[in-house]
Amino acid sequence: MIHDLASHTAAQLDCDERLYKQVALRISELIEHGTLRPGERVPSVRNCSKQQNVSIATVMQAYRLLENRGIIEAKPQSGYYVRLQRWSPAPEPGRSKPPLGAVDLRVSDLIMQVIKAGRDPNLVRLGASLPSPELFPTRELHRAMSLAGRRSLLASHSYDSPPGNQALRVQIARRAMEAGCTLAPDDIITTVGATEGLNLCLRAVAKPGDVIAIESPAFFGILQIIESLRMRVCELPTYPREGICLDELAVRLKSCRIKACVLTPNFSNPLGSCMPDEKKKELVSMLAHREIPLIEDDIYGNLTFGSTRPKVAKAFDQDGWVMLCDSFTKTLSPGYRVGWIAPGRFKQRVEFLKFVNTGATPSLPQMAIAEFLQNGGYDHHLRKIRRLYAAQMQCMSDAISRYFPAGTKMTRPTGGMCLWVELPPQISALKVYQLAMASGISTAPGPIFSAKQKFPNFLRLNCGNPWSEKIEGAVRELGRIIGSLAISGDVSIAEHHQRKPMGIR
Amino acid sequence: MIHDLASHTAAQLDCDERLYKQVALRISELIEHGTLRPGERVPSVRNCSKQQNVSIATVMQAYRLLENRGIIEAKPQSGYYVRLQRWSPAPEPGRSKPPLGAVDLRVSDLIMQVIKAGRDPNLVRLGASLPSPELFPTRELHRAMSLAGRRSLLASHSYDSPPGNQALRVQIARRAMEAGCTLAPDDIITTVGATEGLNLCLRAVAKPGDVIAIESPAFFGILQIIESLRMRVCELPTYPREGICLDELAVRLKSCRIKACVLTPNFSNPLGSCMPDEKKKELVSMLAHREIPLIEDDIYGNLTFGSTRPKVAKAFDQDGWVMLCDSFTKTLSPGYRVGWIAPGRFKQRVEFLKFVNTGATPSLPQMAIAEFLQNGGYDHHLRKIRRLYAAQMQCMSDAISRYFPAGTKMTRPTGGMCLWVELPPQISALKVYQLAMASGISTAPGPIFSAKQKFPNFLRLNCGNPWSEKIEGAVRELGRIIGSLAISGDVSIAEHHQRKPMGIR
Repeated sequence: MIHDLASHTAAQLDCDERLYKQVALRISELIEHGTLRPGERVPSVRNCSKQQNVSIATVMQAYRLLENRGIIEAKPQSGYYVRLQRWSPAPEPGRSKPPLGAVDLRVSDLIMQVIKAGRDPNLVRLGASLPSPELFPTRELHRAMSLAGRRSLLASHSYDSPPGNQALRVQIARRAMEAGCTLAPDDIITTVGATEGLNLCLRAVAKPGDVIAIESPAFFGILQIIESLRMRVCELPTYPREGICLDELAVRLKSCRIKACVLTPNFSNPLGSCMPDEKKKELVSMLAHREIPLIEDDIYGNLTFGSTRPKVAKAFDQDGWVMLCDSFTKTLSPGYRVGWIAPGRFKQRVEFLKFVNTGATPSLPQMAIAEFLQNGGYDHHLRKIRRLYAAQMQCMSDAISRYFPAGTKMTRPTGGMCLWVELPPQISALKVYQLAMASGISTAPGPIFSAKQKFPNFLRLNCGNPWSEKIEGAVRELGRIIGSLAISGDVSIAEHHQRKPMGIR
Repeated sequence: MIHDLASHTAAQLDCDERLYKQVALRISELIEHGTLRPGERVPSVRNCSKQQNVSIATVMQAYRLLENRGIIEAKPQSGYYVRLQRWSPAPEPGRSKPPLGAVDLRVSDLIMQVIKAGRDPNLVRLGASLPSPELFPTRELHRAMSLAGRRSLLASHSYDSPPGNQALRVQIARRAMEAGCTLAPDDIITTVGATEGLNLCLRAVAKPGDVIAIESPAFFGILQIIESLRMRVCELPTYPREGICLDELAVRLKSCRIKACVLTPNFSNPLGSCMPDEKKKELVSMLAHREIPLIEDDIYGNLTFGSTRPKVAKAFDQDGWVMLCDSFTKTLSPGYRVGWIAPGRFKQRVEFLKFVNTGATPSLPQMAIAEFLQNGGYDHHLRKIRRLYAAQMQCMSDAISRYFPAGTKMTRPTGGMCLWVELPPQISALKVYQLAMASGISTAPGPIFSAKQKFPNFLRLNCGNPWSEKIEGAVRELGRIIGSLAISGDVSIAEHHQRKPMGIR
């Protein structure tokens, strides 16, 4: 749809400026929809001037704008062409630069707005970091659950008091070996998802007012938990491929009285970064040396795109300072809410808090997952979803490179399902989020991933859905929204709505 | 078993005292086991002196001790008889007398010891306040769960984000009418048991250091939650039939800066008290007037022994200051962990905390309970368990009246499953607890029900098990243990074990 810029209130816009931007928009629309393909010549200045009934000077200004945006390029003695390189992968973002000190948190209202709005089932959901439900082995799990319930009817209705279901803890301990970790079933406590696990670990080692070090950007759920516990955060700079900068961690450890770290070394959310083993080892040693607990969130660790999953930081834990949190939410079932913690030296305290927080983890979902891990083909399932997620991530990356304006950057995750996209600096991700919602597409805007609402021009996109026409269309529409903001400057939602029916097509 | 008191270390015991206590114990054993029945004559002083080979004076002292304990009575010109009134119901305890001020909590270690020890499946479990698993409609629920899972396979694996399952909230809202309460489904948030509910409510309205008013005695789980949240308590005196004393609440409201109250107006744990409607109304009005939230725990409200369940305090809530917490743990399934809150004016904050604490309540157990409430005969089931619990409570009361020594008092609950027993003042409930554990019986000793470990001579006994020979035997054994402590003074566990094989029978 081509916006009728002429319908704008013209208060601040010079008439000429409105005109050439309108022309630029129309041309970029033709490109976006494939009418004009990469390498093809765009209409000559003279022809365009005739077609659009504007002056030669106006067309020249429009083409210069499109050239500046990297959408078209001038070839000497030949005219303007659609840029060939537009759809090669967008470059990567740089290292993040959070403030040095500790800060209080007041981000929950914005986050809750975004989360609640994103639940509408009619949306194309690119916001939540969630696999499509059809990618879970729902039938097999339901069968495992029915079987477990019939076989142990009374047990399925009784408390499975902390540390939780024994059969499940045996399975978890066996599988921990793949992540380089030697755990006994008694080292493990089951929880209501990793969410409860992160809460319990934080409460076990820190109290209100204490400073927790986190990645920047960080999963907004971690910000919410820390805020709800009245703790403070110190945000650490990150590299998009390797996670936090250890040198900067060392600086902050001296300046910030950090009480604990909450990190996602494997396929962090939203970056998708994966810390190399050597770096994990150094991290664990740095923190253990200062007796600072590392709360490790590994919920994406199994979703590697490679053939073997990366080790957890817990694999390098010699003195019990690493508290490993995980769950089956991203691999088997969000609705079952089965997670677990290996809390190291804090086991007794965590077990007490678990008991006090929810009494016990529901019995039957634990029994069902134990049954499935033992007999249901979990490895086969993991291999399948790793392939799928890798393919979906590739499609999303391609579509972003194709449809988003020049100046866009994005990460290169090697696992997980999040893509972190940096838009040109002047674009407001919150505005993109709002305009996209109005078009039926949810996204996760950058400001919800930091304590101080940094990352104003970043978006996190979910690659958990099987690729489809509908999703491709949604990414194209996102690109259109971003492109229109890039060219025409800020647009209010009201204007966006108003203009919709006035488009030319 | 008759203890061989002669084997005691005699350091502090005068030889004569040991002798007459030994005689008294033997006579009380004959009575306890029915060899001597109520109203029957005990051996004459002369005969006893011959049989036991002790002096007349020793027998006289022994009989005087038994008379003081209310076990035998002297009839003029006739001799000593086993007291007829021994097995009539033990009297009720009086009003509790907690300290006036607010106190910090450090009770969790003792509580956790008691809870963990009580999980041994080989114990006769009179400790936990839990129905026997065979009293739950396990088969019907499993069927409802299988059906719900099959019918909504994808939904059963998806997040059911707060406020939680819609169908379940509709059923809960309908049933709230019976408790005198008008609730819309949107007033309700589902939780992982009432335990999570109590946590969320407390966190929504108070912060670390704040003072929470509770009943004395109070359910130890509430003490643990408050301690884990670093809040403080102010304990309110209670009447064993009507719950807290409102006049004393008024006094404490002035002296204590109370931030919230956590109360169980219906069939409180451990008292079994039920606050009359008029008193509930006054309570709600007193607190609303001062804008103090009342967190109401109603998990036993459906377990009335009468034909209609009592109203909740929430029924009298006009301005949203009452936060009602409930669960299906005591009526349907502890293992499903499905509870709910109607948090009144604090809904938004509670919903946020719920989301942050556990993400969502597991989907399938909620769906199963919604299905059961709609089609599974919940009313029929409630009528059945109300009759059963009433009968079990009666049997337990009878057995206590029969087997426990004179001087024992106990409550007269009209619902729930807890009996609160006051032993003669010199008896240590912790000692009884330890000796009973050594005999394979779990109990809940009084000190775990108060912040300052008051109630040293109280026990809570669970009436949730169908009455059986085994349970009757356990109560008899408890009576024997208590009786032996009553007569012989304190006994260490080591002595108890040592003496066991040395008993006469």
